[in-house]
Amino acid sequence: MHVEIDGKVVESCKRLCPKISAGAFDDSRLRLNITDGFAFLKTDADPHYDVAIVDSSDPSQGPNEYLFQDDFYLLLKNRIHPKHGVLCFQAEHQWLHRGLVKKLYERCKRIFPVVWYYHTQVPTYPAGQIGFFICSNDPDYNPAVVGVTGDSAFVDELKYYTADVHRAAFALPAFVKRYLDS
Amino acid sequence: MHVEIDGKVVESCKRLCPKISAGAFDDSRLRLNITDGFAFLKTDADPHYDVAIVDSSDPSQGPNEYLFQDDFYLLLKNRIHPKHGVLCFQAEHQWLHRGLVKKLYERCKRIFPVVWYYHTQVPTYPAGQIGFFICSNDPDYNPAVVGVTGDSAFVDELKYYTADVHRAAFALPAFVKRYLDS
Repeated sequence: MHVEIDGKVVESCKRLCPKISAGAFDDSRLRLNITDGFAFLKTDADPHYDVAIVDSSDPSQGPNEYLFQDDFYLLLKNRIHPKHGVLCFQAEHQWLHRGLVKKLYERCKRIFPVVWYYHTQVPTYPAGQIGFFICSNDPDYNPAVVGVTGDSAFVDELKYYTADVHRAAFALPAFVKRYLDS
Repeated sequence: MHVEIDGKVVESCKRLCPKISAGAFDDSRLRLNITDGFAFLKTDADPHYDVAIVDSSDPSQGPNEYLFQDDFYLLLKNRIHPKHGVLCFQAEHQWLHRGLVKKLYERCKRIFPVVWYYHTQVPTYPAGQIGFFICSNDPDYNPAVVGVTGDSAFVDELKYYTADVHRAAFALPAFVKRYLDS
Protein backbone atom coordinates (compact mmCIF):
# COMPACT_ATOMS: atom_id res chain seq x y z
CA MET A 1 0.00 0.00 0.00
CA HIS A 2 1.40 3.36 -1.01
CA VAL A 3 -0.38 6.56 -0.06
CA GLU A 4 0.80 9.83 -1.61
CA ILE A 5 -1.05 13.14 -1.33
CA ASP A 6 0.22 14.52 -4.65
CA GLY A 7 -0.05 12.48 -7.85
CA LYS A 8 2.55 14.70 -9.49
CA VAL A 9 5.17 13.27 -7.16
CA VAL A 10 4.54 9.80 -8.56
CA GLU A 11 4.54 11.05 -12.16
CA SER A 12 7.77 12.99 -11.60
CA CYS A 13 9.45 9.93 -10.06
CA LYS A 14 8.46 7.80 -13.06
CA ARG A 15 9.79 10.43 -15.47
CA LEU A 16 12.97 11.47 -13.64
CA CYS A 17 13.95 8.24 -11.84
CA PRO A 18 12.78 5.58 -14.34
CA LYS A 19 15.21 2.93 -13.09
CA ILE A 20 13.96 3.05 -9.51
CA SER A 21 10.32 3.61 -10.49
CA ALA A 22 10.22 0.66 -12.89
CA GLY A 23 10.87 -1.74 -10.02
CA ALA A 24 8.40 -0.09 -7.68
CA PHE A 25 5.37 1.38 -9.45
CA ASP A 26 5.20 -1.53 -11.93
CA ASP A 27 5.08 -4.14 -9.17
CA SER A 28 1.77 -5.99 -9.39
CA ARG A 29 1.56 -6.13 -5.56
CA LEU A 30 1.42 -2.34 -5.29
CA ARG A 31 -1.81 -0.61 -4.39
CA LEU A 32 -1.27 3.11 -5.00
CA ASN A 33 -3.62 5.65 -3.40
CA ILE A 34 -3.35 9.32 -4.31
CA THR A 35 -4.97 10.81 -1.26
CA ASP A 36 -4.33 12.36 2.13
CA GLY A 37 -2.53 9.85 4.40
CA PHE A 38 -4.24 10.95 7.61
CA ALA A 39 -7.71 10.63 6.09
CA PHE A 40 -6.75 7.32 4.49
CA LEU A 41 -5.66 5.81 7.81
CA LYS A 42 -9.00 6.69 9.40
CA THR A 43 -11.05 4.96 6.72
CA ASP A 44 -8.85 2.15 5.30
CA ALA A 45 -10.59 -1.19 5.75
CA ASP A 46 -7.34 -3.17 5.80
CA PRO A 47 -6.43 -5.21 8.84
CA HIS A 48 -3.32 -4.24 10.78
CA TYR A 49 -0.20 -3.32 8.83
CA ASP A 50 3.02 -5.24 9.44
CA VAL A 51 5.17 -2.24 8.57
CA ALA A 52 4.25 1.45 8.16
CA ILE A 53 6.85 3.84 6.74
CA VAL A 54 6.18 7.58 6.86
CA ASP A 55 8.49 9.43 4.49
CA SER A 56 7.34 12.95 5.30
CA SER A 57 9.00 16.25 4.54
CA ASP A 58 10.59 18.21 7.39
CA PRO A 59 8.38 19.31 10.28
CA SER A 60 7.07 22.79 9.50
CA GLN A 61 3.82 24.66 9.32
CA GLY A 62 1.83 23.66 6.26
CA PRO A 63 0.05 20.68 4.74
CA ASN A 64 2.31 18.08 6.37
CA GLU A 65 2.16 19.64 9.86
CA TYR A 66 -0.08 16.90 11.24
CA LEU A 67 2.49 14.24 10.30
CA PHE A 68 4.46 15.39 13.34
CA GLN A 69 1.58 15.54 15.80
CA ASP A 70 0.30 13.07 18.37
CA ASP A 71 -3.00 12.31 16.63
CA PHE A 72 -1.26 10.86 13.59
CA TYR A 73 1.00 8.60 15.63
CA LEU A 74 -1.79 7.48 17.94
CA LEU A 75 -3.72 6.49 14.82
CA LEU A 76 -0.69 4.64 13.42
CA LYS A 77 -0.10 2.89 16.74
CA ASN A 78 -3.55 1.35 16.42
CA ARG A 79 -3.18 0.51 12.72
CA ILE A 80 0.12 -1.41 12.95
CA HIS A 81 -0.08 -5.01 14.16
CA PRO A 82 -0.41 -5.01 17.99
CA LYS A 83 2.44 -7.51 18.35
CA HIS A 84 4.88 -7.47 15.44
CA GLY A 85 3.87 -4.22 13.72
CA VAL A 86 6.60 -1.67 13.11
CA LEU A 87 6.39 2.05 12.37
CA CYS A 88 9.31 3.93 10.86
CA PHE A 89 9.54 7.63 10.00
CA GLN A 90 12.23 10.13 9.12
CA ALA A 91 13.52 12.07 12.10
CA GLU A 92 16.09 14.65 11.10
CA HIS A 93 19.82 14.91 11.83
CA GLN A 94 21.25 13.93 15.20
CA TRP A 95 23.94 16.66 15.11
CA LEU A 96 22.06 19.51 13.41
CA HIS A 97 18.59 19.08 14.93
CA ARG A 98 19.32 17.48 18.26
CA GLY A 99 16.54 19.38 20.07
CA LEU A 100 13.95 18.36 17.52
CA VAL A 101 15.13 14.73 17.57
CA LYS A 102 14.72 14.69 21.35
CA LYS A 103 11.26 16.28 21.17
CA LEU A 104 10.11 13.62 18.66
CA TYR A 105 11.79 10.87 20.72
CA GLU A 106 9.93 11.89 23.88
CA ARG A 107 6.64 12.12 22.01
CA CYS A 108 7.15 8.61 20.59
CA LYS A 109 8.10 7.18 23.96
CA ARG A 110 4.79 8.41 25.38
CA ILE A 111 2.96 6.51 22.63
CA PHE A 112 5.04 3.35 21.96
CA PRO A 113 6.73 0.98 24.43
CA VAL A 114 9.75 0.66 22.11
CA VAL A 115 11.40 3.55 20.27
CA TRP A 116 14.85 3.45 18.61
CA TYR A 117 16.68 6.21 16.77
CA TYR A 118 19.00 5.22 13.93
CA HIS A 119 20.66 6.93 10.99
CA THR A 120 21.92 6.31 7.50
CA GLN A 121 24.47 8.00 5.27
CA VAL A 122 23.00 10.28 2.58
CA PRO A 123 25.88 12.32 1.10
CA THR A 124 23.52 14.74 -0.69
CA TYR A 125 21.66 15.68 2.53
CA PRO A 126 22.88 18.44 4.85
CA ALA A 127 25.85 17.14 6.86
CA GLY A 128 25.61 13.80 5.05
CA GLN A 129 23.10 11.76 6.99
CA ILE A 130 19.46 11.46 8.05
CA GLY A 131 17.90 9.84 11.11
CA PHE A 132 14.78 7.79 11.65
CA PHE A 133 12.64 6.58 14.50
CA ILE A 134 11.49 3.00 14.53
CA CYS A 135 8.67 2.17 16.93
CA SER A 136 6.82 -0.98 17.92
CA ASN A 137 4.06 -2.07 20.25
CA ASP A 138 6.16 -5.13 21.17
CA PRO A 139 8.23 -4.35 24.30
CA ASP A 140 10.81 -6.99 23.28
CA TYR A 141 11.40 -5.57 19.80
CA ASN A 142 15.07 -4.80 19.07
CA PRO A 143 15.68 -3.58 15.52
CA ALA A 144 19.46 -3.30 16.02
CA VAL A 145 19.76 -7.09 15.92
CA VAL A 146 20.26 -8.40 12.41
CA GLY A 147 17.70 -11.11 11.79
CA VAL A 148 17.90 -14.04 9.43
CA THR A 149 18.24 -12.44 6.01
CA GLY A 150 16.51 -15.32 4.27
CA ASP A 151 17.46 -14.78 0.66
CA SER A 152 21.16 -14.01 0.97
CA ALA A 153 21.51 -13.73 -2.82
CA PHE A 154 19.17 -10.74 -2.55
CA VAL A 155 21.30 -9.14 0.18
CA ASP A 156 24.45 -9.76 -1.87
CA GLU A 157 23.00 -7.64 -4.66
CA LEU A 158 22.24 -4.61 -2.50
CA LYS A 159 24.35 -1.51 -3.05
CA TYR A 160 24.38 -0.10 0.47
CA TYR A 161 23.09 -2.64 3.00
CA THR A 162 25.24 -5.19 4.79
CA ALA A 163 24.74 -6.78 8.23
CA ASP A 164 27.53 -4.52 9.58
CA VAL A 165 25.92 -1.42 8.07
CA HIS A 166 22.63 -2.47 9.73
CA ARG A 167 24.27 -2.62 13.17
CA ALA A 168 26.24 0.60 12.55
CA ALA A 169 22.99 2.50 11.87
CA PHE A 170 22.08 2.15 15.55
CA ALA A 171 25.48 3.23 16.92
CA LEU A 172 24.86 6.76 18.17
CA PRO A 173 27.60 9.18 19.26
CA ALA A 174 27.91 9.21 23.06
CA PHE A 175 26.60 12.79 23.34
CA VAL A 176 23.47 11.95 21.31
CA LYS A 177 22.78 8.82 23.35
CA ARG A 178 23.16 10.72 26.63
CA TYR A 179 21.04 13.62 25.40
CA LEU A 180 18.15 11.43 24.21
CA ASP A 181 18.15 9.47 27.48
CA SER A 182 18.49 12.54 29.73
CA MET B 1 55.90 13.63 19.63
CA HIS B 2 54.10 16.22 17.51
CA VAL B 3 55.63 17.41 14.24
CA GLU B 4 54.05 20.43 12.53
CA ILE B 5 55.56 22.24 9.56
CA ASP B 6 54.00 25.61 10.39
CA GLY B 7 54.31 27.10 13.87
CA LYS B 8 51.43 29.46 13.14
CA VAL B 9 49.07 26.47 13.09
CA VAL B 10 49.96 25.71 16.71
CA GLU B 11 49.66 29.36 17.75
CA SER B 12 46.29 29.68 15.99
CA CYS B 13 44.99 26.54 17.69
CA LYS B 14 46.01 27.87 21.10
CA ARG B 15 44.32 31.20 20.40
CA LEU B 16 41.16 29.97 18.64
CA CYS B 17 40.61 26.58 20.31
CA PRO B 18 41.87 27.23 23.86
CA LYS B 19 39.78 24.47 25.43
CA ILE B 20 41.21 21.73 23.22
CA SER B 21 44.71 23.18 23.15
CA ALA B 22 44.97 23.48 26.93
CA GLY B 23 44.68 19.71 27.28
CA ALA B 24 47.12 18.99 24.47
CA PHE B 25 49.91 21.56 24.16
CA ASP B 26 50.22 21.95 27.93
CA ASP B 27 50.73 18.21 28.48
CA SER B 28 54.18 17.66 29.97
CA ARG B 29 54.61 14.50 27.87
CA LEU B 30 54.40 16.44 24.60
CA ARG B 31 57.51 17.03 22.52
CA LEU B 32 56.58 19.58 19.85
CA ASN B 33 58.75 19.94 16.74
CA ILE B 34 58.09 22.75 14.27
CA THR B 35 59.73 21.25 11.21
CA ASP B 36 59.09 19.28 8.03
CA GLY B 37 57.68 15.84 8.87
CA PHE B 38 59.43 14.00 6.08
CA ALA B 39 62.87 15.40 7.01
CA PHE B 40 62.11 14.74 10.69
CA LEU B 41 61.35 11.07 10.08
CA LYS B 42 64.66 10.58 8.29
CA THR B 43 66.74 11.97 11.14
CA ASP B 44 64.75 11.33 14.33
CA ALA B 45 66.82 9.22 16.71
CA ASP B 46 63.76 7.76 18.50
CA PRO B 47 63.22 4.02 18.49
CA HIS B 48 60.13 2.69 16.73
CA TYR B 49 56.84 4.52 17.25
CA ASP B 50 53.87 2.62 18.64
CA VAL B 51 51.40 4.82 16.78
CA ALA B 52 51.93 7.33 13.95
CA ILE B 53 49.05 9.61 12.94
CA VAL B 54 49.37 11.69 9.77
CA ASP B 55 46.77 14.46 9.73
CA SER B 56 47.63 15.90 6.34
CA SER B 57 45.64 18.25 4.15
CA ASP B 58 44.00 16.88 1.00
CA PRO B 59 46.23 15.33 -1.67
CA SER B 60 47.17 18.06 -4.15
CA GLN B 61 50.21 19.55 -5.75
CA GLY B 62 52.12 21.69 -3.29
CA PRO B 63 54.09 21.43 -0.06
CA ASN B 64 52.18 18.42 1.24
CA GLU B 65 52.35 16.46 -2.02
CA TYR B 66 54.91 13.98 -0.70
CA LEU B 67 52.56 13.02 2.16
CA PHE B 68 50.66 10.98 -0.43
CA GLN B 69 53.62 9.32 -2.11
CA ASP B 70 55.28 5.96 -1.61
CA ASP B 71 58.55 7.26 -0.15
CA PHE B 72 56.79 8.77 2.84
CA TYR B 73 54.86 5.62 3.64
CA LEU B 74 57.85 3.34 3.12
CA LEU B 75 59.71 5.51 5.60
CA LEU B 76 56.81 5.32 8.08
CA LYS B 77 56.56 1.55 7.64
CA ASN B 78 60.12 1.27 8.92
CA ARG B 79 59.64 3.78 11.72
CA ILE B 80 56.56 2.21 13.33
CA HIS B 81 57.16 -0.82 15.56
CA PRO B 82 57.67 -3.90 13.36
CA LYS B 83 55.10 -5.90 15.36
CA HIS B 84 52.54 -3.73 17.10
CA GLY B 85 53.15 -0.38 15.38
CA VAL B 86 50.15 1.32 13.79
CA LEU B 87 49.96 4.04 11.16
CA CYS B 88 46.80 6.07 10.62
CA PHE B 89 46.19 8.82 8.10
CA GLN B 90 43.23 10.74 6.71
CA ALA B 91 41.92 9.27 3.48
CA GLU B 92 39.05 11.30 2.07
CA HIS B 93 35.37 10.51 1.62
CA GLN B 94 34.21 7.05 0.55
CA TRP B 95 31.27 8.43 -1.52
CA LEU B 96 32.79 11.62 -2.94
CA HIS B 97 36.36 10.45 -3.63
CA ARG B 98 35.96 6.74 -4.21
CA GLY B 99 38.63 6.59 -6.93
CA LEU B 100 41.17 8.36 -4.75
CA VAL B 101 40.35 6.16 -1.77
CA LYS B 102 40.93 3.06 -3.91
CA LYS B 103 44.22 4.44 -5.27
CA LEU B 104 45.48 5.10 -1.73
CA TYR B 105 44.19 1.70 -0.58
CA GLU B 106 46.09 -0.12 -3.31
CA ARG B 107 49.23 1.85 -2.59
CA CYS B 108 49.00 0.98 1.12
CA LYS B 109 48.35 -2.70 0.39
CA ARG B 110 51.60 -2.85 -1.58
CA ILE B 111 53.45 -1.50 1.47
CA PHE B 112 51.66 -2.92 4.54
CA PRO B 113 50.33 -6.46 5.13
CA VAL B 114 47.25 -5.04 6.88
CA VAL B 115 45.24 -2.05 5.66
CA TRP B 116 41.75 -1.08 6.85
CA TYR B 117 39.57 1.83 5.75
CA TYR B 118 37.23 3.36 8.29
CA HIS B 119 35.26 6.58 8.67
CA THR B 120 33.89 8.98 11.23
CA GLN B 121 31.09 11.51 11.25
CA VAL B 122 32.18 15.15 10.85
CA PRO B 123 29.06 17.24 10.16
CA THR B 124 31.09 20.30 9.08
CA TYR B 125 33.01 18.36 6.40
CA PRO B 126 31.65 17.93 2.85
CA ALA B 127 28.93 15.25 2.93
CA GLY B 128 29.40 14.88 6.70
CA GLN B 129 32.19 12.37 7.12
CA ILE B 130 35.87 11.67 6.59
CA GLY B 131 37.73 8.40 6.08
CA PHE B 132 41.06 7.08 7.29
CA PHE B 133 43.44 4.27 6.55
CA ILE B 134 44.91 2.32 9.41
CA CYS B 135 47.93 0.16 8.56
CA SER B 136 50.11 -2.25 10.48
CA ASN B 137 53.08 -4.52 9.90
CA ASP B 138 51.33 -7.20 11.96
CA PRO B 139 49.35 -9.52 9.64
CA ASP B 140 46.98 -10.42 12.51
CA TYR B 141 46.09 -6.83 13.38
CA ASN B 142 42.33 -6.15 13.37
CA PRO B 143 41.44 -2.61 14.43
CA ALA B 144 37.68 -3.22 14.08
CA VAL B 145 37.74 -5.33 17.25
CA VAL B 146 37.18 -3.23 20.37
CA GLY B 147 39.95 -4.02 22.83
CA VAL B 148 39.88 -3.79 26.60
CA THR B 149 39.26 -0.14 27.29
CA GLY B 150 41.15 -0.19 30.59
CA ASP B 151 39.97 3.03 32.20
CA SER B 152 36.23 2.84 31.55
CA ALA B 153 35.67 6.07 33.49
CA PHE B 154 37.73 7.77 30.79
CA VAL B 155 35.60 6.25 28.01
CA ASP B 156 32.42 7.26 29.85
CA GLU B 157 33.54 10.90 29.65
CA LEU B 158 34.09 10.94 25.89
CA LYS B 159 31.68 12.96 23.79
CA TYR B 160 31.69 10.87 20.61
CA TYR B 161 33.34 7.49 21.18
CA THR B 162 31.53 4.36 22.34
CA ALA B 163 32.36 0.70 21.65
CA ASP B 164 29.44 0.61 19.18
CA VAL B 165 30.68 3.76 17.42
CA HIS B 166 34.13 2.11 17.16
CA ARG B 167 32.68 -0.94 15.41
CA ALA B 168 30.40 1.21 13.23
CA ALA B 169 33.43 3.13 11.88
CA PHE B 170 34.54 -0.01 10.03
CA ALA B 171 31.12 -0.83 8.54
CA LEU B 172 31.46 0.22 4.90
CA PRO B 173 28.55 0.43 2.45
CA ALA B 174 28.44 -2.69 0.25
CA PHE B 175 29.41 -0.77 -2.90
CA VAL B 176 32.50 0.71 -1.22
CA LYS B 177 33.59 -2.66 0.16
CA ARG B 178 33.19 -4.31 -3.26
CA TYR B 179 34.96 -1.47 -5.05
CA LEU B 180 37.96 -1.45 -2.71
CA ASP B 181 38.32 -5.22 -2.96
CA SER B 182 37.79 -5.36 -6.76
